[in-house]
Amino acid sequence: MALSSHARTRAAAPAIDSVRLWDSLMTLARIGATELGGVRRLALSELDGEGRDLVSGWLREAGCEIRVDAIGNIFAIRPGSRGNGFCADGNPSMNPADLPVAVGSHIDTQPTGGKFDGNYGVLAGLEVLRTLAAATHQTARPIAVAIWTNEEGTRFTPVMMGSGVYCGAFSAAHCQAQADRDGITVGAALRAIGYAGSDRAPRFAAYFEPHIEQGPVLERENVTIGAVEGALGQRWFDVVVTGEDAHAGPTPIEMRRDAMVAAARLVLDVRRIAADAPDYARGTVGQMFVHPNSRNVIPGRAEFSVDLRNARESTLAAMVDALRAAAARVADEDRVRVEIREVVHFPPCAFDPALVAGIERHAHALGHSVRRIASGAGHDAVYVARTCPAAMIFVPCDGGISHNEIENAQPGHLAAGCEVLLAAVLEAAG
Amino acid sequence: MALSSHARTRAAAPAIDSVRLWDSLMTLARIGATELGGVRRLALSELDGEGRDLVSGWLREAGCEIRVDAIGNIFAIRPGSRGNGFCADGNPSMNPADLPVAVGSHIDTQPTGGKFDGNYGVLAGLEVLRTLAAATHQTARPIAVAIWTNEEGTRFTPVMMGSGVYCGAFSAAHCQAQADRDGITVGAALRAIGYAGSDRAPRFAAYFEPHIEQGPVLERENVTIGAVEGALGQRWFDVVVTGEDAHAGPTPIEMRRDAMVAAARLVLDVRRIAADAPDYARGTVGQMFVHPNSRNVIPGRAEFSVDLRNARESTLAAMVDALRAAAARVADEDRVRVEIREVVHFPPCAFDPALVAGIERHAHALGHSVRRIASGAGHDAVYVARTCPAAMIFVPCDGGISHNEIENAQPGHLAAGCEVLLAAVLEAAG
Repeated sequence: MALSSHARTRAAAPAIDSVRLWDSLMTLARIGATELGGVRRLALSELDGEGRDLVSGWLREAGCEIRVDAIGNIFAIRPGSRGNGFCADGNPSMNPADLPVAVGSHIDTQPTGGKFDGNYGVLAGLEVLRTLAAATHQTARPIAVAIWTNEEGTRFTPVMMGSGVYCGAFSAAHCQAQADRDGITVGAALRAIGYAGSDRAPRFAAYFEPHIEQGPVLERENVTIGAVEGALGQRWFDVVVTGEDAHAGPTPIEMRRDAMVAAARLVLDVRRIAADAPDYARGTVGQMFVHPNSRNVIPGRAEFSVDLRNARESTLAAMVDALRAAAARVADEDRVRVEIREVVHFPPCAFDPALVAGIERHAHALGHSVRRIASGAGHDAVYVARTCPAAMIFVPCDGGISHNEIENAQPGHLAAGCEVLLAAVLEAAG
Repeated sequence: MALSSHARTRAAAPAIDSVRLWDSLMTLARIGATELGGVRRLALSELDGEGRDLVSGWLREAGCEIRVDAIGNIFAIRPGSRGNGFCADGNPSMNPADLPVAVGSHIDTQPTGGKFDGNYGVLAGLEVLRTLAAATHQTARPIAVAIWTNEEGTRFTPVMMGSGVYCGAFSAAHCQAQADRDGITVGAALRAIGYAGSDRAPRFAAYFEPHIEQGPVLERENVTIGAVEGALGQRWFDVVVTGEDAHAGPTPIEMRRDAMVAAARLVLDVRRIAADAPDYARGTVGQMFVHPNSRNVIPGRAEFSVDLRNARESTLAAMVDALRAAAARVADEDRVRVEIREVVHFPPCAFDPALVAGIERHAHALGHSVRRIASGAGHDAVYVARTCPAAMIFVPCDGGISHNEIENAQPGHLAAGCEVLLAAVLEAAG
């Protein structure tokens, strides 16, 4: 039965409805809409509750059962011919043949966020389910849409809280105890909006996360689909350069121990290190504090941040070595002290090569331009990838701009990403 | 009579008393002494009044008449055989042959200042007069010691107020109306401490200002006397670099418009421009503000100061041209906007070549090591030089440190500077 139904719908080539996808994005964006056209829907706020209710209702209408776990992650499951991903006793199935294929992302936003970051992934998953429902297409595996709690980390830390709990990076109890600036805990906020669940979370056979790129690469290269190979590893440092304060007038250049000059050399070294390294290398000095920061005083101290990223742990380590070597050279030549303290170390995450290749293949087959790309930022997929094969599908966003109320994306690009998602999900779900 | 007395004392070689000089410095430093060994004696404060009373008393005891002008400048005059520098009607003499030879500086201090900045110049002048008094040495010209009001400019602006009024850079009325943060005007403060004078200021035949170097050159080169050729011209700029904010992760290096990187290149350009230019060139970036100054955001804006100095106006202009050329190059290559706004332009001041050569000659004759040097900072002598031949005598200070409570100088160096001063004054005064 299931197999013949499957064969029939393949022949009918179920197609997503790009207008319906766009309309769902615009409807969800009304909840927390800002005057400048963005969205402010902070994690576990009343507005987040409204958004969850809206999207859960849509998912239920598309034929899903809704489960909510202890950290408020929502799992909407459309059963397949092999069940719903759970055993009869209510525990999640551990049988590899039965596990759901999942699509997920988040619907909480930045304080001045946009309509697409996160929301697109969830609503693309919804659109896949609506498409299958309309086509009465039965898959072998169940299909799940996951809405992860507090990806943005703006109101509560840690960021990517829901997916982090899902993969065991931190415990639900630890996260429930985190409080916002008003002292409201995650646990209390979950209860207030009715999302303090007690369901077990399903395991997945595969996980796909469609997302706007949040960077400029696809747009500048006029490419529609990014087959995301992985997320860059990140190593963050605090650097303190100590020289000697002195009057700008009486002190000849060659007698100075100028912390600003030494810091400037290191800023350029960071850029050079990133420009010269392979594997999607990034290097950024985002923060700079100069002391005493007076016009006519040679700075005696400069403090700055260094953010190094790379898709490969070994290349990232080589970049760090190069930073330390540059610091030693500058310290010696400029007669300053340079202290480097590592403050963050996220390892790179490689997505599943077969899923990435599949995304590329489906894009080609559907006639969409595609390139391999890395995610420079963190996403829920990075945590979920610790539990199952995972991959992301990027689509362009206008100007590469995100985390901004003017964040925008083109309906055609969003639809293309959703078409690739549908093909990838169907392939994985059988 | 005067001539024979002069001949006799030349034979007797009047010698300064280095212990008396040191003791006067330490006694004056008690007024406003800080716990860390420095001095806080803000211009026209009660403590400044006490300091003025003390030093005026000493000068009177050394045989001087005291005059105070409308801005509170004190002129202590030891008459010469040619009079006291004033006509019978009380107006200052304009006869070049009669004009006093002056020594001067200031006794107001920085909020956390030292014992020597300014005070040394005034008390070296006092020591010269005490030496001549002890030797009953009669000069042809009168000798004046000037104590200029509010050199530091910390409590009231403009800086170098007293000497500025003396040379006509600003009017006494304008300066009297300036208020401190508590709304107390210069005029009211002068009246409160009894230094709102009405005397006319004398004109000078020559002006000498001994001062600690406030820089590292003499100490590092183990030289005792600096024959100051002039004060550097200063041109100060505000620079704004505008690029584009972007996420540090998703944005490849080659697609960035990183204001921090562009600013760092310009910081190094400023140093290179100063290192390559002749004529005591200095170039300093003392202030740096980066926006949004967030670890994982590529800075879209960087604002910084540039302080360029040079002894020669034409070389200073060439340095400014080089800065503008560097800014244009960086703007083009890094695809940023660079705006440069000039905020200060003090022209260089060349001291009197004959007086500078004399200082060098006297130092040699007295067995003190000497080198030509530039003053990187402003001094009262820069304004006085607009009215008469002027020069400065620098002595080393420990570590080149000044405007600091740990400011220190060696008694032997201070005495050496005073010996050179005495010789220079006697030569000029006849």
